[in-house]
Amino acid sequence: MDTQDNQLARVMELFTTLLGERQSQEELHPITPAVPPEKLLDELPLELPDKGLSFDEVANRLRAVVRATPSTAPGRFYNQLFGGREPYAVLGDILASALNSSMYTYKVAGPQVLLENELIQRMGAMMGFENHEGTFTPGGSISNLCAMIVARDKTCPELRERGMDGTKLRVYTSAESHYCIPKSAAFLGIGRDNVVLIPADKRGRMITSVLAKAIDEDIAAGYVPMMVNGTVGTTVQGAFDPIAKMADVCEARGVWLHLDAAFGGTMAFDERYAETFLGSDRADSITWDAHKLMGVPLTCSVLMIRERGRLRASFDEAAEYLFQSDDDQWNPGTRSIQCGRRNDALKLWTNWLHHGTEGYVARTERMRDLALLAADCVRETPGMTLVKEPESLTVCFTVDGVAPATLCDALQDAGLAMVGHAIVDGEPVVRLALVDAGTTEEEVRCFFEDARYVMRRKAIA
Amino acid sequence: MDTQDNQLARVMELFTTLLGERQSQEELHPITPAVPPEKLLDELPLELPDKGLSFDEVANRLRAVVRATPSTAPGRFYNQLFGGREPYAVLGDILASALNSSMYTYKVAGPQVLLENELIQRMGAMMGFENHEGTFTPGGSISNLCAMIVARDKTCPELRERGMDGTKLRVYTSAESHYCIPKSAAFLGIGRDNVVLIPADKRGRMITSVLAKAIDEDIAAGYVPMMVNGTVGTTVQGAFDPIAKMADVCEARGVWLHLDAAFGGTMAFDERYAETFLGSDRADSITWDAHKLMGVPLTCSVLMIRERGRLRASFDEAAEYLFQSDDDQWNPGTRSIQCGRRNDALKLWTNWLHHGTEGYVARTERMRDLALLAADCVRETPGMTLVKEPESLTVCFTVDGVAPATLCDALQDAGLAMVGHAIVDGEPVVRLALVDAGTTEEEVRCFFEDARYVMRRKAIA
Repeated sequence: MDTQDNQLARVMELFTTLLGERQSQEELHPITPAVPPEKLLDELPLELPDKGLSFDEVANRLRAVVRATPSTAPGRFYNQLFGGREPYAVLGDILASALNSSMYTYKVAGPQVLLENELIQRMGAMMGFENHEGTFTPGGSISNLCAMIVARDKTCPELRERGMDGTKLRVYTSAESHYCIPKSAAFLGIGRDNVVLIPADKRGRMITSVLAKAIDEDIAAGYVPMMVNGTVGTTVQGAFDPIAKMADVCEARGVWLHLDAAFGGTMAFDERYAETFLGSDRADSITWDAHKLMGVPLTCSVLMIRERGRLRASFDEAAEYLFQSDDDQWNPGTRSIQCGRRNDALKLWTNWLHHGTEGYVARTERMRDLALLAADCVRETPGMTLVKEPESLTVCFTVDGVAPATLCDALQDAGLAMVGHAIVDGEPVVRLALVDAGTTEEEVRCFFEDARYVMRRKAIA
Repeated sequence: MDTQDNQLARVMELFTTLLGERQSQEELHPITPAVPPEKLLDELPLELPDKGLSFDEVANRLRAVVRATPSTAPGRFYNQLFGGREPYAVLGDILASALNSSMYTYKVAGPQVLLENELIQRMGAMMGFENHEGTFTPGGSISNLCAMIVARDKTCPELRERGMDGTKLRVYTSAESHYCIPKSAAFLGIGRDNVVLIPADKRGRMITSVLAKAIDEDIAAGYVPMMVNGTVGTTVQGAFDPIAKMADVCEARGVWLHLDAAFGGTMAFDERYAETFLGSDRADSITWDAHKLMGVPLTCSVLMIRERGRLRASFDEAAEYLFQSDDDQWNPGTRSIQCGRRNDALKLWTNWLHHGTEGYVARTERMRDLALLAADCVRETPGMTLVKEPESLTVCFTVDGVAPATLCDALQDAGLAMVGHAIVDGEPVVRLALVDAGTTEEEVRCFFEDARYVMRRKAIA
């Protein structure tokens, strides 16, 4: 039988081979036409065998699965708010896998805990925080959930021990915000009905006068407002809620201000957004996903809390078999919703070493420039209408006589691009997400030529 | 500037180099003596640079960090309930990183969603489930949290919309169970005070007569019991709650039975545990972490629900920009606590192809044999006392005249082994976790020789 070392050498070779094949495939056929799940189930050897397979058999099955996995190749994948996974980030991620540190204690994770903290401190400082704390979580939804738990426990300090006591809690968020806000309120026993949706203006930004009025009316009616969620980069329009105005409203009423900057946090690297971020230092907590715009593989989400100690107040449990040495300052498990936890920090740290802060500035500005270029392309394409000026990196448009869903499906079926559709002001639109710094200007222009080609064919058909 | 392809080739070479260095280091010095965080902070180049670093500079910083990261090398690391990350599992994990699929929709994740389901179906079938559903989550704590949400929403169907209505909910779990149970109850607004700790017998198993009495008294007092948590493999003693008896209690009273088999689920591969698992098909939900005993890197946790539809009832939100094609049967995002989600299934699937089910049987039996061997070694070592016969893979013992924490620290400082201490029946013990199938019998015997060596030195000192 193989030793583990020999095996590791062989599978590393296989990894390199499969990756090379993948790259060739992406160059020739970047987008795979949609295949129904039933067909793939028929075709692919997915079943778990009774007897172990040989190296070659494993390789063949993996090859078949990799080949059928939709590509997120730059210049063709505009479907989601994450894009690109850059080489150095992949290096950090696969090192994390091989090292297999669990991020609960300094005892077992050592310097990985320290570099995680370096990132938390730096990203918080970019938001204007000082002497803050934070935690990595498996995604923006979980970060926002954790923020809501912390906000609630601060508002009702006895709730953690005694449970809900009949206090009628309320959460406020814009109608354009992410679906995880009502979802989290349901988990916490607050109820989706107690999430008050504040309308947004024409640019997709929360109207703060309505927010202030809603809170005041709720207080008068006996509700206890426990969190206002400001969205820094909405999912569809990429819009930014007015942070400073929201901070005014929250401070005057003693309500926790959370910023869901999962999507937009990275835009803080772009000086053109300096004014947009004014007041972020007055937020109580901020979510920022690095896996969306910073070129690192899924998932890499950071939750930052302005006031130290809040995370332990909500997440710490005595577990003497686990936390048994060192100052708990260096045991992140005391501040986490998880117990065992994958190391999501090393990939971001490694990519940051490679780019430097200056590189991230250039990279972020570049994505914004691509979005502005895409907006110009829409304006220049006959039959296309730009729904709104893009607030950040998503460009929403419509096409005369072709439903957005139809255009998206046709682009995928023709193997040209993967792009999604969404609803803006009640109308369906195509949402083009320019979230991969690896995309070229040429590729953006090419997308619109492909779209015109598909439109013409649809018009003929 | 490098193309991304060239960069990827270079960083892959660097990965192989760093991994090779790591292996040499582990052979010579498997365990790094503890270094205080302040010292590491001083010594390591952790800061994020303004200007991007060269390839060589990145390599050097990574090298320094990797070298200082505690090893989880087999035969030396007995500190936690996860161990080993086998080559094929690492292959699957790093492929997942490179493919960077987000597991919310079939549209973007394709066959990865199908093989994830293959695992959910197979692992559920091993527990006796049929026609069940499930979801991968980032760890056992989150799986148990999700189970508690589902149980609560079934018990109080209006709670998700309206919030807690004053119903006094109660959760039951053994005094030996994982700390995430009260933690989750705090999150959900149930309150830690409403988690009833049922005592365990001498073997660490919940006493079901006390459970039945506690539930009946609570019902009489106006409480609504919403979940009983049975632990299948407790964290310290590796004990198994009596599943069939608990199912009797729960069925008679209409209470949701959850099994936290995060640690012990894998023992179902070992025929010697067949009787232990009797009744698992009557549970309503089961958590099973593959990253603990199945040789895959962190994290890989599966939550299985016996009755289909429950997950969507608690986790689905309308998000038309996301879920826009295909039957939602194949869109796992409608059943997940997360939105964007890393692919944790591919590593387990790949490792299963390599081992086959039969290989996993042999592997699991082997770990149990190692635990039995370790118990024998304790009995044969003068001055050591076996606290209890090991129920599964953890071996708890004491040493005459040496505090468990002292022995553990001394073993680490001497670079010999990493092992933890815990509390059993109020007394501190050394907890040796035999959770890595890569450990040899020779290495287990060696651990006890090392421990004797350290004991002698402590006795002299």
